[in-house]
Parts: sequence; C-alpha cells; structure tokens
Amino acid sequence: MVNVAILGFGVVGSGVYEVITKNNEIIKQRAGKKINVKYILDIRDFSNHEAANLFVKDFDTILNDDSVEIIAEVIGGATFAYECTKKALLKGKNVVTSNKELVAKYGHELLQIAKENNVKYYFEASVGGGIPIIRPLKTCLSANQICEICGILNGTTNYILSQMINNDKTLEEALKEAQEKGYAERDPSADIEGHDASRKICILSSLAYGKRVDSDKIYTEGITKLSLEDVKLASKFGYVIKLLGHCKKVGDMLDVEVSPALVPKHHPLAPVEDVFNAILVNGDAVDDTMFYGRGAGKLPTASAVVADVIDIAKSDGFDPSLMWTDEGSDKIIDHLDSKKKFFIRLEGVKDVQTIKSNFDAVDVLNEKNECVFITGIMSEKDINDKLTALNSKIVSKIKVI
Amino acid sequence: MVNVAILGFGVVGSGVYEVITKNNEIIKQRAGKKINVKYILDIRDFSNHEAANLFVKDFDTILNDDSVEIIAEVIGGATFAYECTKKALLKGKNVVTSNKELVAKYGHELLQIAKENNVKYYFEASVGGGIPIIRPLKTCLSANQICEICGILNGTTNYILSQMINNDKTLEEALKEAQEKGYAERDPSADIEGHDASRKICILSSLAYGKRVDSDKIYTEGITKLSLEDVKLASKFGYVIKLLGHCKKVGDMLDVEVSPALVPKHHPLAPVEDVFNAILVNGDAVDDTMFYGRGAGKLPTASAVVADVIDIAKSDGFDPSLMWTDEGSDKIIDHLDSKKKFFIRLEGVKDVQTIKSNFDAVDVLNEKNECVFITGIMSEKDINDKLTALNSKIVSKIKVI
Repeated sequence: MVNVAILGFGVVGSGVYEVITKNNEIIKQRAGKKINVKYILDIRDFSNHEAANLFVKDFDTILNDDSVEIIAEVIGGATFAYECTKKALLKGKNVVTSNKELVAKYGHELLQIAKENNVKYYFEASVGGGIPIIRPLKTCLSANQICEICGILNGTTNYILSQMINNDKTLEEALKEAQEKGYAERDPSADIEGHDASRKICILSSLAYGKRVDSDKIYTEGITKLSLEDVKLASKFGYVIKLLGHCKKVGDMLDVEVSPALVPKHHPLAPVEDVFNAILVNGDAVDDTMFYGRGAGKLPTASAVVADVIDIAKSDGFDPSLMWTDEGSDKIIDHLDSKKKFFIRLEGVKDVQTIKSNFDAVDVLNEKNECVFITGIMSEKDINDKLTALNSKIVSKIKVI
Repeated sequence: MVNVAILGFGVVGSGVYEVITKNNEIIKQRAGKKINVKYILDIRDFSNHEAANLFVKDFDTILNDDSVEIIAEVIGGATFAYECTKKALLKGKNVVTSNKELVAKYGHELLQIAKENNVKYYFEASVGGGIPIIRPLKTCLSANQICEICGILNGTTNYILSQMINNDKTLEEALKEAQEKGYAERDPSADIEGHDASRKICILSSLAYGKRVDSDKIYTEGITKLSLEDVKLASKFGYVIKLLGHCKKVGDMLDVEVSPALVPKHHPLAPVEDVFNAILVNGDAVDDTMFYGRGAGKLPTASAVVADVIDIAKSDGFDPSLMWTDEGSDKIIDHLDSKKKFFIRLEGVKDVQTIKSNFDAVDVLNEKNECVFITGIMSEKDINDKLTALNSKIVSKIKVI
C-alpha cells in the first residue's frame, strides 16, 4: 500500500480523490499495490464530506508522517505550494503536481532537490491537462533529438478563436460566451494575454533541451489584438488563426515564443477546436507526432495527476530522464531576430509591386483601403524596418507557420 | 553500460542501429548509462558494413552471452522470431520488438514467460510505428477505465483512401500509386484486407482490458469492396471513409472489429491523411485523447524500439502494467449483434417512406437508380433481415461512427 496526501481540495484536488476512489481496483492492478489517500489538506470546512476524517489543516501533520510517500500538490500558485513542495522533497517524499506556474518558475530548483533526495517530482498535469505529453517527451521519444514543439496549449483562447472562425463572433462576444460557460475566468488576462501558454511552452522546452528556459525571457503575445477581419482574411489565404506556444532548435540556440499564428488549413493543428489542446512534437527519428485531448477540467487533469502517482508507486528513486539544469537562459534567440513568415495588413498602400518585391510576397489582396499579404521568410526586425520605410499604417502583423 | 543485440538487419533493424549510434550521447543522458550494440544477427553478408564486426549468424552466440541484457527482435513473423523471443526471455533477457504478428498471436504467453523470469517484453513499435501509444495506454492513462479505442492503424490503406477522397482516384489507381511509392507491398493483401490493422487493434484491446483478445475472433473487413462512388456519396452526407480498428466496452463484453467506416468530417480522425496513423482513446477520466504520427517507416519505428530499450535500461524487473492474461476470448460480441449506424446504398427501391420508417433514416438521397441513406442505431442482424425483406440489390453497406 502507498499512502498519498492531497494538498488543496479545489476542482483538481477533488477530482484526484474521485479518480483514486472510483478506479481503485484497476489502479491497484496497474500499480501493483493499493493507492490510499491518507490526508487531504484544506483550510475550509469539509466536515460533511464522505472523507471528512481525512481532512487536516496543518501541513506539518503530513510532512511528519513517514508513512506518506507521495504528495499531490494541487494548490496552485508559486508561494505556499513552493514551500510545501520544497519541504516535502527535502523530507524524502515524492511530489506530483498540476501547478504550471510553480514548475515553470522553480522547476530547475525543485528537480535538483528531488535528485539530491532520490525522489521524484512529476508534473504530467501541468501541460495539456489530461493529454499525455510530459511522459511521452521524456520516455517515448527519448531516442530522439527534439527539433520542434508547437502546440495549442490554452483551451480558453482556442474556444474563443473557434467561435470567431466558425461562427463569425467578435473577440468580445466569444470571450463573454466563454465566461458564461465557465471556460474563462472573470479576469481572463492569464489566458488571453498568453501567460498560461507561456508557462506551458516554458516547461516543454526546458524538458526537451534539458536546460532551464527562463519564462521571463519568452516573448509572449496574446490574442487581444486579433480582429474578426484578421480571421476572415487569413481564411481567404487558406489559414486559420490559433494561439501557439512554439519552440524550435536553431543551431545551439532556442527560438521560443507564444503568439497568434496563421496555421495552414491542412496542418494537423488546424482542426483542433473549442477547448481542446494539441501538441505537435518533431523529433529527428520519429518526425511529426501529435498529442490531442482536453487541456483542462477536473477529471482529465486528475487523470494525469493520478497517472504520476501510479508511476511513482511502481518504482523508487529519482528519474534522470525528467530533469533540466539551471543553465542555458542565454540561449534564447531574441524574437526580433527569429526568422519566419508574416501575414500583414497595411492601410493606404496601393503599390502592389513594391509590396511584392520588398516582402517577397506572392499574392497581394486589395481589400477596401488595405493591402493584405504573406511575406517570405525574414526576421521581424527586417520586416519592421521595411514597414517603417513604407510609412503606412500597420493594421495587423501576425506570424505564419 | 547496457549491451543490446539486434535480431534482423532489415529496414527497422538498420534504423535501430542508426538511431542508437547517431543519438548515443543524448540517449546516454536519458538512460543514465551508455547503450551499446554488441551483436547484430543476420544471415546475409554485411562484411563491408561499418559495423561488420558486430554481425553474427548464430542466435546461440547472443543467447549464451550473459552480458547481453536486451534483445531487439525486428525479424518479423511468428516462427523464428517466436523461438528467439521465448529462449531469450527464459534466459532472463529483456526483449523489445516491432513484431505485431507475434505480439497479437503469442503476447499472452510471452508476457507470462517475462513475468516468471522477472524481465520485460516491450512492443511500443508494434502499433502505430513511431507514435507513442502502448506506453501512454499502460502508464499515462493508467488511472482510467478505457471505454473505447478507435484508430487509423494502417498507413497504406489510409494513403489509398486519401487519394480516393481528395483526388478522385479509383481504388485500383490509388493502390498502384501506393505500390509505386513503396507504401504498399507487391502483394498488398495484409494491408488492404485489414489483417495488419486487425493485429494492431488486437494488441491495443488486449492491453486495455488486461485479457487476451483472440485475433482470429476479430471481425475483419478491408477496403477492397469500397468504390469511388461510396466515397463521393459519403461526402454528400458530411463524412469521409476511413479504415478503422475499433474496440468498445459494452457491459463486460468487448465489441472489436476492423472495417471501413464513415467518419464525420469534424471528427478528430477525419483530417488524418496519407500514410499517417492516429489512435483515439476514450477513458472515463480523461475523456477523448488522440495520438498521431507516422505509423511506419525506418526511423519512426526505430524511434519506438529504442525508446523501449532506454526504458528497460532505466529499471530492472517485470512491468506489471504491461500484461494480459490468457482468458476472456469468450467476451467478444458477435459482430452481427453489435449495434451501430450504417450507410446503405440500395438499387431498385424508390419508396423513400418505407426506407425512412424501416431503417430510422432521416435523409434519403435518390441517386440515379439508387436509394442512399444512413440508418439509425441497430444491429447488423436486424439490418440484414430488413434488407432481405426488401428484396432489392445492396450496392454498399458501411458502418458509420
């Protein structure tokens, strides 16, 4: 039998309890031993809950009980959760979490502590909710050099964009609807400004390259500047707009960013709609492989947390394949130097020939008072210089993959 | 250091050697130790190969060398490969393979021998080529009861169907093209008759339910009866036709089959084209999750074989989560009793009202001399009885998901 303590009994915490309880028999079979929830830490009153006797309000009760081998930290945030995780690892307890903020910010440090104390720090649920992605990256694709990771990592923004693309909703209308359906928070900034996706690509790129990618250094642009007109014009060129977390190896440097991007309609990420997430990974042996599913939600996220618990129950010790070191933050390419194609809308320019030759553009659409085109591959810095020289109003400038 | 022997130096075997050699440093880091190819078994002459000194012609050389811990069996077939695998496991050596025929036929027996000898028998590459699917099923989704698995498991037939759907090719034209491109064998029957997909859904369903699914009991129908007209009419109803391996839990019984199926155009499997494979897994906690990538090919398949090698290098002993027992073959539903919708084309019936009421059909198309419609959910036996009573010619009858 393995004793587990759940820290935090919110949406994910109650899901973890539910999955362990409901699927106890099948979990026992797969783990080779029974998984037992011994404590639940929450300061709120759960005296009427079926598991009322498991609730404690003091973390030390859990920390000082040597029979607790695994802690599921589902508190969120990077303060109290950080303290609890550090103390638990130092005490020789394994920790699993869905806390992307904590892993993105302190992953390198917490993994190092786990290594020194010969325990595991697992966080499958921190990226892509229920979608298996951390374990496939570290294990299933372990024979590969990872060349590129490109993913729809935030369900809220993908829902909003799907509504704009399929139902002609404006961003404001779609956001309001997402809030009404519970897909977006009352303060939606972490989602629509791209910070949530940024933490997730930070974790994936750190794992893929074994070196810490500093989340503060990731260029992050949300969907707030996108208009319905952008979505419609992108469609005329054969693209849909998605918010992508993107990481690419360029020599020994990394090109990492979060931004809206035009995705060709035949690309595997294009048909990923509503709150679903998908992550495309390109490895030098496996080529393209994609992982798709629910990126959030009580039971999908709990599914990933409990999978980590089961995996730890099966084997002792630190896992060397899930590790990154505190170096390499100088290896991030400045996003202005990163080379790619752009979709551009300019107001007040009518000289199509200049556009074509300056920007290596094949087709130029004349829409109302605008020139709309897709550039050749060039750095954003070059593009900005050329746009400044044209002295026209830039309506939109969006990356194209 | 861990010593590996590769059995068979064909396409996959040479890929395994290439990946281990090329990515040796990164593999060492992830495995925690160096992976060394000590022997390659092949009866052909490779005296001019860079690794000529590794080649042996007698399996006993490998079997009797106690320093060989892992054997990569990439011979194929279920005779010599079976003998080698059995001997190796009995000798306490771990075995990894891409051999779907062997795993589908003797998996229960070989896993039992692995268990008794406390070693691993891994076969990530046997389904979906480079796509991580076996390990996600056994580990990442281990907190779930698996409700359904539905996959495009054969690249050759998916290429042929994509050509029919997108480029109006006939089945014969598309098959010829696939053969010219090397996607189909000169004798294409294992692919186009569905046997390859059948072995793969046999392995996935055995793993998901922990009990042997007898490959001979899986109803298997290939794509040979499909016409371009079927593809076009399916499109009018909003569907694409795919060859699916499908396994569904119905009470304590399993509904397993391989057959062409109409897939709604907005379904995640619909945009999976050409030689790509994708497997949709539905679990009670995670809901829908999908795995996509190259289902065959030298390096993608080698990627999966080498991932198994690395995983074994990291931990000793039998893996209880990858196991099925030799029971349960009586739990397969007769495919005539399995309930689903069907797409039907009938010649010589013009009474639309009879069709609608008999088959619970909403829309009935009158095309040339035909009635074309999609039935409500009913057993194939019921449908067959009703069709017999109508006394008209059945042009097509294809499952709808």
